[in-house]
Amino acid sequence: MFDLVIIGMGPGGYEATLTALRKKLNIAIVEKDKLGGNCLNRACIPTKYLRNAAHQIEKLRKIADYGIELEGYRVDYREAFEAKNRAVASLRNSLINLLKSKKVSVYKGRGKIVGRHKVEVLYQDGSSEVIEGKNIIIATGSVPSSVDSLIPDSMDVITTEDFMDNLSTLPENMLVVGGGVAGCELGYISSIFGTKITIVEKGDRLLPSRLISKEISKHLQKKFSQLGIKTYFRAVVENVDKEGEKLKVSLSNGDTVEVDKILLTVGRSPNTREIDSIGIDKDERGFIKVNSYLQTNFENIYAIGDVINSPMLAHVASYEAKLVIHNILGEKVSPDYSLVPWAIFSGYEISHVGLNEEEAKERGIETVSGYYPFLYNEKAVDELEPEGYVRLYFEKESLRVVGADVVGVGASELIHQIALFIKNGYTAKDIHEFIYFHPSLSEIFRYATYDLAVGKLFYD
Amino acid sequence: MFDLVIIGMGPGGYEATLTALRKKLNIAIVEKDKLGGNCLNRACIPTKYLRNAAHQIEKLRKIADYGIELEGYRVDYREAFEAKNRAVASLRNSLINLLKSKKVSVYKGRGKIVGRHKVEVLYQDGSSEVIEGKNIIIATGSVPSSVDSLIPDSMDVITTEDFMDNLSTLPENMLVVGGGVAGCELGYISSIFGTKITIVEKGDRLLPSRLISKEISKHLQKKFSQLGIKTYFRAVVENVDKEGEKLKVSLSNGDTVEVDKILLTVGRSPNTREIDSIGIDKDERGFIKVNSYLQTNFENIYAIGDVINSPMLAHVASYEAKLVIHNILGEKVSPDYSLVPWAIFSGYEISHVGLNEEEAKERGIETVSGYYPFLYNEKAVDELEPEGYVRLYFEKESLRVVGADVVGVGASELIHQIALFIKNGYTAKDIHEFIYFHPSLSEIFRYATYDLAVGKLFYD
Repeated sequence: MFDLVIIGMGPGGYEATLTALRKKLNIAIVEKDKLGGNCLNRACIPTKYLRNAAHQIEKLRKIADYGIELEGYRVDYREAFEAKNRAVASLRNSLINLLKSKKVSVYKGRGKIVGRHKVEVLYQDGSSEVIEGKNIIIATGSVPSSVDSLIPDSMDVITTEDFMDNLSTLPENMLVVGGGVAGCELGYISSIFGTKITIVEKGDRLLPSRLISKEISKHLQKKFSQLGIKTYFRAVVENVDKEGEKLKVSLSNGDTVEVDKILLTVGRSPNTREIDSIGIDKDERGFIKVNSYLQTNFENIYAIGDVINSPMLAHVASYEAKLVIHNILGEKVSPDYSLVPWAIFSGYEISHVGLNEEEAKERGIETVSGYYPFLYNEKAVDELEPEGYVRLYFEKESLRVVGADVVGVGASELIHQIALFIKNGYTAKDIHEFIYFHPSLSEIFRYATYDLAVGKLFYD
Repeated sequence: MFDLVIIGMGPGGYEATLTALRKKLNIAIVEKDKLGGNCLNRACIPTKYLRNAAHQIEKLRKIADYGIELEGYRVDYREAFEAKNRAVASLRNSLINLLKSKKVSVYKGRGKIVGRHKVEVLYQDGSSEVIEGKNIIIATGSVPSSVDSLIPDSMDVITTEDFMDNLSTLPENMLVVGGGVAGCELGYISSIFGTKITIVEKGDRLLPSRLISKEISKHLQKKFSQLGIKTYFRAVVENVDKEGEKLKVSLSNGDTVEVDKILLTVGRSPNTREIDSIGIDKDERGFIKVNSYLQTNFENIYAIGDVINSPMLAHVASYEAKLVIHNILGEKVSPDYSLVPWAIFSGYEISHVGLNEEEAKERGIETVSGYYPFLYNEKAVDELEPEGYVRLYFEKESLRVVGADVVGVGASELIHQIALFIKNGYTAKDIHEFIYFHPSLSEIFRYATYDLAVGKLFYD
């Protein structure tokens, strides 16, 4: 019997493995697909690769200001796609080699929990075997959601996974259904590589999440308009007719769009179908129910990452993985999601941590906010990246920082400073007086402690 | 009589102005040259502009991996130089407009302190006037140092200021005298734009400062070798003969180098000659002596920035400026330089904060260090920037972080996280358990809490 069987080898399973190995647990891994999960193979890592490519292409338009005269250039998505695959393969091989070097048992099949301590591994050839673990972690992640009117067929209507795995040549026209994170990321990449993009979103803005300030959506919307990305809001797809090679898409607002392909980005659902035969509790959306120690209704069976109802982010899965190993070893630790940073990589790099104005209001916290644009940040100017801004949210009375939005260059790194400011109780004054390197993007936090509206520091 | 006369409008003078205005002080500024000082006009800002240009040129060699096929390109230093001037002018205009909008009195001449409350302003036309201030801040910065054997003539032997102000066309061959920060920055830029660079340094390595770990120098040396930058160590210039258009330079090691130009980067000296006629105390190197409240031997006369013997960094000058305004208003605050971050921008972005191994040893602190290369950081791979590393220094017993070196992409931003870790007493465990966005460069800190040598976390 293993000490621990981990089902799913994405960022959650990977971190659980590393931590368990350090703690000398005897573990087994069950993974039906490529090691690394969606994050490494189809999401976080490869999308950022392609986004960097797109951003570099955009930058080529500015680099005459660096004294670089281009005679001309072509962009070839297939080349980028294949190089992306090589980069991912190389990172995946590091992971494979690490597991080999640690002599970890890897079972390459689908895991199904068939007893409190029993995991059946179902292989592709139809055979199966049962392995046993004192503890089990379910870390099987999520799968693309779909909507009733659109059935993915890997040809005309594709999922984000089809896009990342197989779409090595981009279509001329593509409809992106859903204006959330994936839609804004893949829509942007495709647009820069030459595809005419239309986005249809049932909400009233891009990135229609409570976590995302309306100001961010507006900023990104402006950029998308400049790029010629067409957006429809408060609309859904009602019907699709195939006419020759073209898809004629009727929208609920009466408009019709003609495209070559439809990319479905309507969210992700927990990958928990047929995960067990023993009655593990799930909610109505299929998320596995866990207590504050991440235990399911079977105390030796834990669930982490996208299969539970916590933020669907790779680093949340890793975070939960570490806590679970501690809990398996007798501690009693619970996750705290209040300082989980998130970032998206679209026409701008966008990040957020803590509370924005709306979230603060919901908790009864009155806020004031400090805004500063990158336009006046010398480093951003040096990098030819003067677009975007920082907005810091402060609790009105104490002027303690409670959250931040960052839009623009370096956003996904800068956000960690804010997490540290919040964690350590920094006020506007503390942030203003912290010593920043000059010139740095980080200095923008200092200036965001001014209230631009009245031209004064908050704390004066 | 003004509340405050500020002599010198670089980053120190600028911050003093902003803070004084907020505190409703009635101020006058005396500046003989362009507003913004060396930092804005000739150093921090424009060098980073050109360095970003150079880095983009280097990146062009890799971007086939982004699916970008260049038909060809030319680099034209003059274009970059002029665009740099435009960017700086635009930032300088913001500054000018700000001062105008605040109706600040600006005296465009050289300031000389001729009485405890009197500053004589000497204009270029020979005229002068005396203005009076209850308080005076000396923030006149520094000027390039020279060495006996080499007299700058703005033609054959140039200073960093000549380079940044006037050298719009690069020579074919250039000798850089001095392998410190300026030499490594300007040598790198020139090399990428096509100049054959030789560096001669009297120390035994590039960046020969106690603050800079030998590991950093070695890393940069390797890069310079790849770029074809030739380096001589433990050598100085002994003689220069002009033969036609060429300069024949004899070095103390017996070697001879033939170049078109010599760039002197042998450090900077405080700009304090003829600063006063009232006997302000200076040390043997010309630095103005100040007490812990940044007061000179006249208690109403303060000195900040490069004129005093504190780290010669723009953000140190701004930091001191703020403290001085507080002191003028009756507080008693002293600078603490322990968490001043620094960064250099050469073949790599390099940064440091706190203590390195050697500095720690000098203070009797025994350290262990955690190293991690960007090669395995997914975001760095996505950015095609897998070179460089992070080294964290921990106090051996407590495993509290005491300092860090960062070499590679994003170094000058990432360093602020370490400053915050140190400031808030983070241990290796705290750094490991902090929640980082995935994928981010910042995650490298988590992995640098492993001791790679034994493959274990420090705190396990």
